[in-house]
Amino acid sequence: MTNFQTLASPYAERFLNQIREESRDGRGVSRQGYGPHEQYVHDLVISEAKRLNMEIEIDPAGNLWITRPGKNRSLPGIVSGSHGDSVPEGGNYDGLAGVCAAMTVADMLDRLNVQLERDYTVLVTRMEESSWFGRAYVGSLALTGNLKPEEVQLRHRISDRTLFDTIKDAGFDPVAMTSGKPLKELSNIAAFIELHIEQGPTLENNPTHRIAAVTGIRGNLRHKICRVIGETAHSGAVNREFRHDAVLALADLLSRMDKHWKEWLDAGEDLVFTCGVVNTAKTAAIAIIPGEVTFGLDMRSLSMDTLYRFHNLMLAECDEIAKERGVRFEFDNVLVCEASGVDPQVRGRIEKAAADHSLNALSIPSGAGHDAAVLSNAGVPVGMIFVANQNGSHNWREAMKLEDFIQGAELLWHTVCDYDNK
Amino acid sequence: MTNFQTLASPYAERFLNQIREESRDGRGVSRQGYGPHEQYVHDLVISEAKRLNMEIEIDPAGNLWITRPGKNRSLPGIVSGSHGDSVPEGGNYDGLAGVCAAMTVADMLDRLNVQLERDYTVLVTRMEESSWFGRAYVGSLALTGNLKPEEVQLRHRISDRTLFDTIKDAGFDPVAMTSGKPLKELSNIAAFIELHIEQGPTLENNPTHRIAAVTGIRGNLRHKICRVIGETAHSGAVNREFRHDAVLALADLLSRMDKHWKEWLDAGEDLVFTCGVVNTAKTAAIAIIPGEVTFGLDMRSLSMDTLYRFHNLMLAECDEIAKERGVRFEFDNVLVCEASGVDPQVRGRIEKAAADHSLNALSIPSGAGHDAAVLSNAGVPVGMIFVANQNGSHNWREAMKLEDFIQGAELLWHTVCDYDNK
Repeated sequence: MTNFQTLASPYAERFLNQIREESRDGRGVSRQGYGPHEQYVHDLVISEAKRLNMEIEIDPAGNLWITRPGKNRSLPGIVSGSHGDSVPEGGNYDGLAGVCAAMTVADMLDRLNVQLERDYTVLVTRMEESSWFGRAYVGSLALTGNLKPEEVQLRHRISDRTLFDTIKDAGFDPVAMTSGKPLKELSNIAAFIELHIEQGPTLENNPTHRIAAVTGIRGNLRHKICRVIGETAHSGAVNREFRHDAVLALADLLSRMDKHWKEWLDAGEDLVFTCGVVNTAKTAAIAIIPGEVTFGLDMRSLSMDTLYRFHNLMLAECDEIAKERGVRFEFDNVLVCEASGVDPQVRGRIEKAAADHSLNALSIPSGAGHDAAVLSNAGVPVGMIFVANQNGSHNWREAMKLEDFIQGAELLWHTVCDYDNK
Repeated sequence: MTNFQTLASPYAERFLNQIREESRDGRGVSRQGYGPHEQYVHDLVISEAKRLNMEIEIDPAGNLWITRPGKNRSLPGIVSGSHGDSVPEGGNYDGLAGVCAAMTVADMLDRLNVQLERDYTVLVTRMEESSWFGRAYVGSLALTGNLKPEEVQLRHRISDRTLFDTIKDAGFDPVAMTSGKPLKELSNIAAFIELHIEQGPTLENNPTHRIAAVTGIRGNLRHKICRVIGETAHSGAVNREFRHDAVLALADLLSRMDKHWKEWLDAGEDLVFTCGVVNTAKTAAIAIIPGEVTFGLDMRSLSMDTLYRFHNLMLAECDEIAKERGVRFEFDNVLVCEASGVDPQVRGRIEKAAADHSLNALSIPSGAGHDAAVLSNAGVPVGMIFVANQNGSHNWREAMKLEDFIQGAELLWHTVCDYDNK
């Protein structure tokens, strides 16, 4: 363990545990955005800010900004943080790890009495998870002026209450949040650095490299409901040459795309391809050649160009299969979520800090979306640090080891401290 | 048109239309075995039996036997008929054509006041279709003592109610049906002759021969519910090498079997292969790698040896895919329906009747299974007559021309009437 790790671990552990205890739900934790358990995270950060003599500001969306002033307050500041909410029955670390890392750095700056060249701010965003109202990134979208009025009319999946009323009840301003204007002057942010659990297995399967600098955040192309239309017929009485089997046509398509996917990966492209939902018609039966099957598709890549080329390849395969098998493919409108770069300079600073301080850090993409992507798409220079975690995420079995986390926090620490070093 | 055809057509048309009207479901007809619309067919046949002074008997499986006594009641009788149920959103003629043909012959025997040498019985069987519970030929298997106790424990695909309870509710005896003993003395049947729509395209593509004597009946191997178990994970954050995608594993299996199937056909084997039902879990979503998919399988051939070898090949492919993809395949017990010959003498009588009465009849195999096959495998001498039909079967677009049907009914009529002629 490095000196930083020995000094900082107890603080981080206490912070994470205190919040876990408060938001336990029987299996994991539940911290709804604009609900009491998310508020508890903000309250704890505010009480810590007071202890650390930091400036406290809450924007109209309820995002919390606590700042340790730098020597030169006219310089754009360094901001770090993440979200305090969670999915229902989620794990403790999705979001909270990033808040904790930023707080651990604030605590260490105070303990070691370091004054940075520029302001250092911990940002705790609101409602990053979409589980309760169906809209993700609410706090950061409002911050950047990108939350739409109709989006706060979404209703809670159980109580049916609108997001608008929920935000008002929590003491914030849904009108200002959807005005189309940023809630803060974004050019005052020199860099936003978000630490997050990886949510994938790459780091967890690496015995020596437990943290990473993120190289970009994957965008995606999605089709929610696609359909293969063939022809139902008797499964015994119709020979192969007379069939128009929708399921075999889809199997053919998926197998072809699976092979292409592998080839594209071998050729160095970044790509994931998922057909997460497949259902034959309600009237389907064992003894009927299936005449219809619906399916959903999700393709993600760091490169939108890769996505559009893979999508085109898929459509070309569909045409070929349609001709060969006498079936028809139907696709709904493609839903696009743009890939987001990280800022090359911020990423470079993170990678340099790792190298300078002998921290083993990989460079890997982020498959999931993050508040950092929303800020990046609004022009803020962002970087991300990933920490290995266990059992995926968005489920109560999600886990993270303190010894891995504290390495990530140290990487954040050095990136922040070295920011204005030559 | 022959004299028979002119006389008999109106009766047949009325019978078929009356039942279609009662069991319409918006697209086609739905007559679930042991449900109210199947019962309607039985009720109509019972009321006709009363009008025609026929003896009425209902066996413990609910199969209906109505008999016009012959001169010599100690002789084994001639039995004709089929099933009254249908697949969901099915056509009107699969099963019902055979019931109608047998009733048309009964009606004509009455109208022409013919007393045959031996008894003539119309048999309406129960639940020939597997669509609702996954077990086909329930009535005829029970009749022959071949329905297994575990098979009545199958559950309705929507209501989840057991077949056992469904049969009991309909007023029949699932315990007697699965006692292992035939419900009737089968040696009292001299011949069972089932008329059926072809369900395949051979006769429909023949301009001059619209009916056929059947030469053999495909058997089948089925799995009602099979499962691929993989691992759910985030669709963006987990790269290909860490995935255990149940849907891509199934697509791989189906594509491999599709290729093998084509090769086996090219090598001269008789085989059809269908995966009619595929569904991901209820919790499946576009942004989750699918960790589970269920599916059903149906394979048919005139040769049981072909079926068992193809089934083994499939299991071997599953083993390979399971290893390659880190998934697990689960299969329920295989349901076996033996391939069946028809009785050469009964077939000969049908072919001779066609020749003697100048009816153009082909001789072709049956791709679908039939109650006749179940009776044949239990030692009953069976024959079958096929009638051309349009748009396959087991779908609501299934059709049959009355002019073709009535030729088939006439062939049955002559086969029955000529039975004891020298």
